[in-house]
Amino acid sequence: MRIVVPQQPTAPLSDAWRTCVGTGRLDLALRRDYQESLALTQREIGFRYIRGHGLLSDGMGVHRPYEHAGERRVRHAFTYLDQVVDAYLELGIAPFLELGFTPSQLASGEDTVFWWKGNITPPADEKEWAELVRAVLRHLIDRYGLDQVREWPIEVWNEPNLPIFWTGGQDGYHRLYEVSALAVKEVDAGLQVGGPSLAPGYRDEWIQRFGAFVEDRDLPIDFVSRHAYSSGPERHVPFGTHQTLMPASALLEQFAAPRQQLAGTRLAGLPLHITEFNSSYRPDNPIHDTAFHAAYLAPVVAGGGDVADSFSYWTFCDVFEEVGIPTALFHGGFGLLTHRQIKKPAYHLYAFMAQMGDAVLARGEDHLVTRHGDGRVTVLAWAPADPAGGDPVDGHTVRLSLPVGSPGARGSAFCRRRSVSEEDGNVWAAWCEMGRPLAPTGRRLDALREAAEPGRSHRSVPVTGGRADVDLVLRRHEVTFLEITPVVDETPEWWDAGRLLGDR
Amino acid sequence: MRIVVPQQPTAPLSDAWRTCVGTGRLDLALRRDYQESLALTQREIGFRYIRGHGLLSDGMGVHRPYEHAGERRVRHAFTYLDQVVDAYLELGIAPFLELGFTPSQLASGEDTVFWWKGNITPPADEKEWAELVRAVLRHLIDRYGLDQVREWPIEVWNEPNLPIFWTGGQDGYHRLYEVSALAVKEVDAGLQVGGPSLAPGYRDEWIQRFGAFVEDRDLPIDFVSRHAYSSGPERHVPFGTHQTLMPASALLEQFAAPRQQLAGTRLAGLPLHITEFNSSYRPDNPIHDTAFHAAYLAPVVAGGGDVADSFSYWTFCDVFEEVGIPTALFHGGFGLLTHRQIKKPAYHLYAFMAQMGDAVLARGEDHLVTRHGDGRVTVLAWAPADPAGGDPVDGHTVRLSLPVGSPGARGSAFCRRRSVSEEDGNVWAAWCEMGRPLAPTGRRLDALREAAEPGRSHRSVPVTGGRADVDLVLRRHEVTFLEITPVVDETPEWWDAGRLLGDR
Amino acid sequence: MRIVVPQQPTAPLSDAWRTCVGTGRLDLALRRDYQESLALTQREIGFRYIRGHGLLSDGMGVHRPYEHAGERRVRHAFTYLDQVVDAYLELGIAPFLELGFTPSQLASGEDTVFWWKGNITPPADEKEWAELVRAVLRHLIDRYGLDQVREWPIEVWNEPNLPIFWTGGQDGYHRLYEVSALAVKEVDAGLQVGGPSLAPGYRDEWIQRFGAFVEDRDLPIDFVSRHAYSSGPERHVPFGTHQTLMPASALLEQFAAPRQQLAGTRLAGLPLHITEFNSSYRPDNPIHDTAFHAAYLAPVVAGGGDVADSFSYWTFCDVFEEVGIPTALFHGGFGLLTHRQIKKPAYHLYAFMAQMGDAVLARGEDHLVTRHGDGRVTVLAWAPADPAGGDPVDGHTVRLSLPVGSPGARGSAFCRRRSVSEEDGNVWAAWCEMGRPLAPTGRRLDALREAAEPGRSHRSVPVTGGRADVDLVLRRHEVTFLEITPVVDETPEWWDAGRLLGDR
Amino acid sequence: MRIVVPQQPTAPLSDAWRTCVGTGRLDLALRRDYQESLALTQREIGFRYIRGHGLLSDGMGVHRPYEHAGERRVRHAFTYLDQVVDAYLELGIAPFLELGFTPSQLASGEDTVFWWKGNITPPADEKEWAELVRAVLRHLIDRYGLDQVREWPIEVWNEPNLPIFWTGGQDGYHRLYEVSALAVKEVDAGLQVGGPSLAPGYRDEWIQRFGAFVEDRDLPIDFVSRHAYSSGPERHVPFGTHQTLMPASALLEQFAAPRQQLAGTRLAGLPLHITEFNSSYRPDNPIHDTAFHAAYLAPVVAGGGDVADSFSYWTFCDVFEEVGIPTALFHGGFGLLTHRQIKKPAYHLYAFMAQMGDAVLARGEDHLVTRHGDGRVTVLAWAPADPAGGDPVDGHTVRLSLPVGSPGARGSAFCRRRSVSEEDGNVWAAWCEMGRPLAPTGRRLDALREAAEPGRSHRSVPVTGGRADVDLVLRRHEVTFLEITPVVDETPEWWDAGRLLGDR
Repeated sequence: MRIVVPQQPTAPLSDAWRTCVGTGRLDLALRRDYQESLALTQREIGFRYIRGHGLLSDGMGVHRPYEHAGERRVRHAFTYLDQVVDAYLELGIAPFLELGFTPSQLASGEDTVFWWKGNITPPADEKEWAELVRAVLRHLIDRYGLDQVREWPIEVWNEPNLPIFWTGGQDGYHRLYEVSALAVKEVDAGLQVGGPSLAPGYRDEWIQRFGAFVEDRDLPIDFVSRHAYSSGPERHVPFGTHQTLMPASALLEQFAAPRQQLAGTRLAGLPLHITEFNSSYRPDNPIHDTAFHAAYLAPVVAGGGDVADSFSYWTFCDVFEEVGIPTALFHGGFGLLTHRQIKKPAYHLYAFMAQMGDAVLARGEDHLVTRHGDGRVTVLAWAPADPAGGDPVDGHTVRLSLPVGSPGARGSAFCRRRSVSEEDGNVWAAWCEMGRPLAPTGRRLDALREAAEPGRSHRSVPVTGGRADVDLVLRRHEVTFLEITPVVDETPEWWDAGRLLGDR
Repeated sequence: MRIVVPQQPTAPLSDAWRTCVGTGRLDLALRRDYQESLALTQREIGFRYIRGHGLLSDGMGVHRPYEHAGERRVRHAFTYLDQVVDAYLELGIAPFLELGFTPSQLASGEDTVFWWKGNITPPADEKEWAELVRAVLRHLIDRYGLDQVREWPIEVWNEPNLPIFWTGGQDGYHRLYEVSALAVKEVDAGLQVGGPSLAPGYRDEWIQRFGAFVEDRDLPIDFVSRHAYSSGPERHVPFGTHQTLMPASALLEQFAAPRQQLAGTRLAGLPLHITEFNSSYRPDNPIHDTAFHAAYLAPVVAGGGDVADSFSYWTFCDVFEEVGIPTALFHGGFGLLTHRQIKKPAYHLYAFMAQMGDAVLARGEDHLVTRHGDGRVTVLAWAPADPAGGDPVDGHTVRLSLPVGSPGARGSAFCRRRSVSEEDGNVWAAWCEMGRPLAPTGRRLDALREAAEPGRSHRSVPVTGGRADVDLVLRRHEVTFLEITPVVDETPEWWDAGRLLGDR
Repeated sequence: MRIVVPQQPTAPLSDAWRTCVGTGRLDLALRRDYQESLALTQREIGFRYIRGHGLLSDGMGVHRPYEHAGERRVRHAFTYLDQVVDAYLELGIAPFLELGFTPSQLASGEDTVFWWKGNITPPADEKEWAELVRAVLRHLIDRYGLDQVREWPIEVWNEPNLPIFWTGGQDGYHRLYEVSALAVKEVDAGLQVGGPSLAPGYRDEWIQRFGAFVEDRDLPIDFVSRHAYSSGPERHVPFGTHQTLMPASALLEQFAAPRQQLAGTRLAGLPLHITEFNSSYRPDNPIHDTAFHAAYLAPVVAGGGDVADSFSYWTFCDVFEEVGIPTALFHGGFGLLTHRQIKKPAYHLYAFMAQMGDAVLARGEDHLVTRHGDGRVTVLAWAPADPAGGDPVDGHTVRLSLPVGSPGARGSAFCRRRSVSEEDGNVWAAWCEMGRPLAPTGRRLDALREAAEPGRSHRSVPVTGGRADVDLVLRRHEVTFLEITPVVDETPEWWDAGRLLGDR
Repeated sequence: MRIVVPQQPTAPLSDAWRTCVGTGRLDLALRRDYQESLALTQREIGFRYIRGHGLLSDGMGVHRPYEHAGERRVRHAFTYLDQVVDAYLELGIAPFLELGFTPSQLASGEDTVFWWKGNITPPADEKEWAELVRAVLRHLIDRYGLDQVREWPIEVWNEPNLPIFWTGGQDGYHRLYEVSALAVKEVDAGLQVGGPSLAPGYRDEWIQRFGAFVEDRDLPIDFVSRHAYSSGPERHVPFGTHQTLMPASALLEQFAAPRQQLAGTRLAGLPLHITEFNSSYRPDNPIHDTAFHAAYLAPVVAGGGDVADSFSYWTFCDVFEEVGIPTALFHGGFGLLTHRQIKKPAYHLYAFMAQMGDAVLARGEDHLVTRHGDGRVTVLAWAPADPAGGDPVDGHTVRLSLPVGSPGARGSAFCRRRSVSEEDGNVWAAWCEMGRPLAPTGRRLDALREAAEPGRSHRSVPVTGGRADVDLVLRRHEVTFLEITPVVDETPEWWDAGRLLGDR
C-alpha cells in the first residue's frame, strides 16, 4: 500500500533527539581524539548539550585541600575544567553538568566505581561539598557569564539507586540532593537543578519517594531525570559481553515512565530529561558496532520526542574507559564513533536525522517524512530490527507518494539517497573481513574510514500533479535517508545528447 | 578466459603519466579556486610538473619598460611570478616553463590569441627578449636555488606551427628558438631547454626541419616536445562544441611519432615530452565531463609511458579562460576538476593510477596489475570506450587469478574496490538530472560533490595456493580500481557471531 | 594639563568607521592573496561592507550575448560573481554593490579606464542594461535570500563627474541613474539604491543638480554617496607619484559637504556614505605605506562618524591593478595591507579602533577614550601629523586621569599598550633598511612581517580613588592603543619573591 | 674589548642541544593541549626525540592479562601507544623509549611513585616482562618499520638509584637490565638499548658498578645515560617549592661525569645521553618560569654539546601531573611552555638556538656566533645569571666585530634582533602584574600570549672592510638573538625621501 504523504505539515519535529548526548568522564575531553570526534559530531549532527561523569572527581583536579598556618583550607582549581568547557563551547555544545563523584579528599569512604576509580561515597563534610558546588558554579559564571550558565542544567549525582554508584542509600541521596540544590540556588536562583538520575529496572519506586521528598521539603527542582536501557543479563567473554535485548519500544516506555509515576505531583509538569539511553549498558557489547543497532534505534530516535524533552545517547564516541582502556579498535563501546573518528551505523542514523526538516508531514512504524523551510521533502525510513533475530534478509519496502513543488506541478525531481545497512556503511563488517585487527595500521584505517561512509545514489523521478511516487526497497537492517528536490530545467534548447561523440 | 597474473613483476611502472599536467594561463594560479583544485590534485594524484601559457604575457606583469633620464629602460618585476611559483612549490609541484607569449610592449604586432589576448607576434627586439629570458631565469635561481631550477624544463613557445599561435612562420620560430636557447644557456649551462612544442595534424613536417636546423647550427637542446589530440572537425552550438573522436590508440601513435620522425638525428635520443594531450582540443566540448572520457583515456594513461617520457593532460582544472569565462559549472572544460573542486570521471582515472604499485605484474587491453613494496596487489581495469558509440551497456568482464601473499598461502584476502562508470562517480549525469543548472547553489554543489565520489565496495575473497580468483564485471564505461590484501586473522577463539543478540 | 576622563559615557561610539572598506576590481576577489588578506582584515578589524569596481565589466563574465536561431540573445552568467560573493559572506563581509562599468558588448564606445580597461561609455541599449541589472539582482536574491540582499546598498556607477570614468556627461548620468534605480526597484521595492558617487574637487555642483533631478522626477533614492581625497597635484617618477596633502581636517569637511549642499531637499535626510576616501587618490604614492599616514588619518577615523554614516577606506589591500601590476612589494598602493598580508601602519590604526569600546568617555584632538561592556577602559591616542612636514621628532604627551573599576577603588591596574610610529610597527622603514628589494624572498618576508607588528608593552599602574594617572609619551607619528584593566589580586599570602633563588 | 669574530668557522655546531626533550608521562600525549604545545615546539625548535615515563604503566593500557579456558593469558593492546607514536611522528619527533614502569598486574608490590601512581616494584615474572618488551617492540616494527625503530633508543627504567623510583636495589636493576636488554636484542640485534639512567647526587657510584656488571656479563649496551640537576634542598610552601641553585657550570660537570667515571671500560666510548636535565628537579618551583632561568641555562645549552651526545631538557611543556594537576597557569612547572602554549623565557632560548647556523665562528662565556650556509651570521648572547642573586640590573655589553658579506665589502647590513629579559618576553612578570590569576580568562590569556613574545627590533648598520661593529647592550637576564644580513641596495636612482609629502 502506498502512503500518501500530505502536502501540509501535521506537527513540528521535536528537537529532543539532539538536545543532549553522553560522554566518557569529563577529563577525557582534554584529549585530541575526543575533541576531533566531537568536532565531527557537531559538524554533522549538532547536539546542544553534553553530559558525562567525573566533574568533581580527582581527574579534574578541582578540589585541592592544603595546610597553611596550621589549618586545612581548600583551593578550588579550574585548570582542566576551563580547558574542557572552553573546548565544548568552541565546538558549539554546552555542558549538562552532573555533580559527582566525590573528590577523594572529601569522601567518607574508599569505595569506587570504574577502572578510573570514581569515589561513590557520600561527602564527609556537607559544608565543604556545598562550598565546592558553589565555587564551581561561581567560577563558571565569572568565566562564561550568568546568561550562559543559566542555560546549563545541573543534575545531582548519577544513578544513586544502584549500589555500585552510591553507597549512601536513598535517604543519603535525598540529603545530597537537598544540600546540592540549595547550594546551586544560593549562587543564583536562575540556575537549573534537577535529579534523581535513576537507572532503570532496579528500585524503580525511588522516583515516587524522591518526588515526595522534594515536595515535602519544598526543595528547588527544575527538571526530572532518569535513564533507559533495554538489555538483559550479561554473559561475559574476555574483553566482551553479550546480552539479549528487549524490543525497541521498551526504551520509549522507559522514557515515558516518570511522568506517569509522578502524576499528580508538582514534578509531573517539569521538563523530563532521559540523561542516558542505549540498548546495552555495557561498553564492551559488540551490538553497539552493528548495522542492526542503527535500525533498532531508528524508531526510538524518530519518535522519542513525543514522550521526553531530551534523551541522551550514551555516548558520542568510544574514548571511554569505564571497564579499562579498549584493547581493540572495535570493542563494543557505546560510541557513535569508535576511536579515530570512525563512524558506526548508529552515527549515520543521527546524521540523517540532522538532515531532516523541522515540520513533520508523516510518521509511521518504518518512516518519518518532513518538509524544510525551502520546500524540500526528506524521508527517513528503516527496515525492521528484531532483537529475537528474525529479520528478513532484504526487501522490506516503504512505498510513498511524496508532495513535490507546488500542487499540480509537472516535470521531474532530483532524489539523493544515503543508506546504511548490513551491506553499506557497515564498517564493523569490513573490520571483520579484515580479520578483526586489534590495532589496524594507517592504510587499514583509511580503508575502514572509507567503508564507514554510507551508500550513496541519486536519480531523477517524474513528477505529476505535484507528486512523485517513490518505492524505498530496503536491505537487511537498512536505515535510509532520501531528499527530493523539484528540478528547474535549465537545459538549453539546442542541447542534443546524441551529438556528444560528434556528428557521425 | 582467466588471466593468470604472475607472482613476479615483469617491469617497473613508468612515472610518465604523472610527470606533467597542463594548466590555464599562469596568472590564473593566483586564484583560490585554482590553488584549492591543485592542492586536491596533488594530495590525491601528485603530478611532478605543471605547464601553462602566459609566463611572459602582460597578465604576469614581468616586462615593464619605462622612461628615465630620457631613455627607455626595462624593469623586470616578479610580484606575481613569485606568488605563482611559491604556490606551486608549496603544493609539491614544479613549473615546466614555457617561454611565451610576447609582452605587448615588446611585440612586433598586435595579433593575439584567446579571450585573454596573448600576443603571438615575434619580439620586436631580440636583445630585449633575450634579456627578459635571462632576467626571469636569474631571478628564479636567486629565489629558489640553482639546483632546483636546473630540474625545471624550459620550452620555447607553444604550437608555433599553428598560425593562431605564432605569426612568425617556421624560420621565425627557428630564430626565436636560437635566441632563447642561447639566452637560457648563458645563464647556466645546466638548465634544460627544448622545443618545438608542435600541434598535431598540421604541418607535421616542421619537426624534421626543426631537427635539421638545431643540428646544423649545433644549438643546445635537452628535450623534444610535441602535443597530441584525437578530435575531428568542430561543430558549434552556443557555448559549446561537438567533435568526433579517433580511437584512443591514435593518441599513443601521436606520442610515438617524434622519435620515428627524428630517427637518425641527435634529437632522437633526447627525452620526449608530450607537453599537451587530450581527446578534444576545445575547452567547451562536453565529452571532457563524461564517464566515457575516463574509459576512453584509460589505455592511454596506463600505457603511454612505453613511448614517451611524459604526456601532460591538458588541463588539471576548469579555471581556464581561453574562449572566455565559463558560463556554466559544466561547460566541457578540459579540467580533471571543474570549478570548486568537483571531480570529473577522468580525475578518478588519475587518482586510481596514483594508487597503483611501482612494479607491473600484468598488462592487457583492459587491465593493468601491479605489486607494491609491501606486497599488496592492485588492479586497474576498464570497459571499452568506442568513439563510434557502440559500447555495450554493462557486463564487460575481466577475469583474473591474482597472487596474494606468499606462494601457497591459504586463507582470505580483503578486497577494496572503487569505480567510476555511467552510474557511479558520474557527477555530470547528476548535474543533468538536476536540470543542468548554470550556477548551482551551495546545497546543490554539496549534492554534486557527493555524486562525484566513486562507487566503493569491499569484500572478502578466499585464497588458495597463494591465489585469489577475481571477476571484475564492469558497467558501461567503468574504470575500476581494486586493492587486494592478505588477511592476518586476529579473531579470538571465543568469538561467536551467533551470540551477538545474546544467549536466547 | 591632565585630562580627567569622566566615569560615565558621553555618547556611543559610531560604527561608521568600520561600515565599509574599498577593494580593487571585483574579480581580484577570486585570488588567494586577496582572500587571505581579507580574512586577516576581517579577523582583526571586521568591516561590514566591501565596495569595488567592475561588477559588470568583462572580467566578471556576467553579460554574455550570443546568436541562436538567427537572433541576438544574452545569457547572464554568474560563475565568478557567485565565487566572489560566497567568499565575502564566508569572511563575514557583505557587498556594497556598484553598478558598473559597461560590458564591452553592451557599450556605446571603446573608451576605457585603468590598465584593466573598464569601459566607461554609456550602455548602447538601455533595456539590455536594465535587464542586466535585474538579472544580477534576481540571481543574488535566489542564491542568498531577499532578506540578505535588501541589506546590500546598490550604488549607480563611480565618479561620473570625472571624464576619465564616464563619457556620458551629467545628463547621461542622470539617465543612467533613472534606468538603473527603476530596474532595481522593479526587482524588489525593498532594495536600496543610491548615488551619485561623485569625486571631490571637480564639478562639485553636480550634487545639487543630481538632487534636483531626483526630486523633480520623483525617482527612488535610499542613500547619497560621494568620495573624499586630500592630495594635491601629481608629480611623477617611474612607478611612483608624489603629492602634497591638505590637513586631515579637509577630509572631514569633504565628508560633511553633501548634507550642506543638499540642505532643504529630500536627499539631505538620507544616509550619507563616503564610498571612497584616502589621502592621495594615486595607487603609487608611497605616503600610503608610511607611519605618517596612520597618524594623519587617526583623527579622521576617530571622528568621521560625526558627519557621515560611513566612510570607506580605499582600499583594504594592495591586490590592485589600476595603474598596472605592482612591480615592488611596497609601491605606494592604497592598501592597509600590501601583498602577502603585510600590515602597514594604517592597518593598525583600524585594528586599534576595532579594540575600542562602544561608549565614548572622552574625545580630543589627540585622543579617544572608550568604555567596554565589561568595564575595561581603552584609549586611542596619536601624535600630530603635519602634511607640511613640521612634526616634532618625539615626545608629544597625552596626560590622562582614567577611571578604573568602581569609584573609590584602590589597588592596581594592568596596562597593555600597542603602538605604531616611525620606530615601531613601521614595516616600510624596515624594507628601506633592507635596500628596498622589489621581490623579497621568503626569509625577508618573514623579517618584514615581524617588523610590521606593533610595539607592545605592559605594566602595572597604581589606582587610587578609582583613578589611574597615565602619561602617554608618543614618538614621532605614533598611534597608540592602551587597555587598562583593574587587577584582582590572587597572590597567595605565603608568596615571597625573595625566596625565588632559595633560602640562602 | 671588541671581539673580532673570524670570517671562517672553527667547528660545526653540535646538534646535541636539540637531540632530545623530556615530556610528562606518555598517555598525556593523547591530549590536545599537549599536542598543540608539541606542534608549536617542533615548528619553532624542532627536537629529534622525546622521552617520558609510563610507557608500560596502566595508563597506556598495554599489558592486559585475562582468563580464558581456565588459564592466565596476556593480550598486548596498543590502542593508545599507536595514537601517541602516530602523533609524535606526525609532528616530526621520534620516541626515546623508556622501559617502565611495571604494569600493576605484573608488579611484585604496590609501591608507586607520583600522583599518577607509577608502580616501582620489580616485575613479578621476568618472562612475562620480557614478553611484554618484545611484544611492544615487535608491534612498533610492524607498524612503523624496522629501519625507523632501529633509530629509537631504548632505555631501561628511570633513576633506579633513587628508592622512590625503584624498590629493587642495585642488583635488582642489574637483573632488570639484563632481562630487558636481551629481550630487546632478541627482537632485532640492530635495536639500541642502554642505561642506567641514574639520578645525580645520590649513590653516584652505581655507574661504575653498572659498567662492571655489563662488562662482566658481556651484555648488550649501545649507549650510557644519566640525569643532571643543579638544585639544593627543598623548602615547601603550599603548591610550591623553593630551592637554591648551584652555578650553571655544575650542570656541564654532571654531563661530563660518566665518561670520566667509566674511563677504561668499553662503556666510555659509547654515546652518552643526558636523558634529563634542568635546574630544579621539582615541577612546582617558580624559578622555571622566570627570565633568570633562560639566562642561567644559556651557557649550558650553547656549550653542552662539547661533553655529551644529547642533553634532554625536562620538559617541553607543563602538561605534567607528577605532583598533581597544576592549580595555576604558572605553577613552577618544568615546561618550556606552560598550559595553552604560553612561552616561558627558556622556550625562547631554545627557539633562538634553532635559528643559529651550523658552523661556529666564535664562542665565549656570554656569546655564540655562527655562520649559515647562505652566508648570514647569527649571534646568541646572554647576560650573567648568578644563582646567588648578585646580577646587575642592566648594561652587560657584548662588543663584536662581525664578518658581513665578502671580505672587503662596503655598504650596509640589516640587523634583526629578538630578546627576552626581565623586561621583554617575560610572561611571568606580566602574570604577576595581573595579580597572579590562577585561571585567567580568554582575554587575559591573549594578553599573556602577547607578553610572552620576545622584544623585536631591526636596524641598519654600516659595513666597512667586510665588517660591522655591533654592541649588544643587554638588560638584566637578557638572552638575545641577532641576525645580520648584507644589504643589496635596489633603491632606484630617482628616489628622494624628501619628496614624500610632495614638492612644497
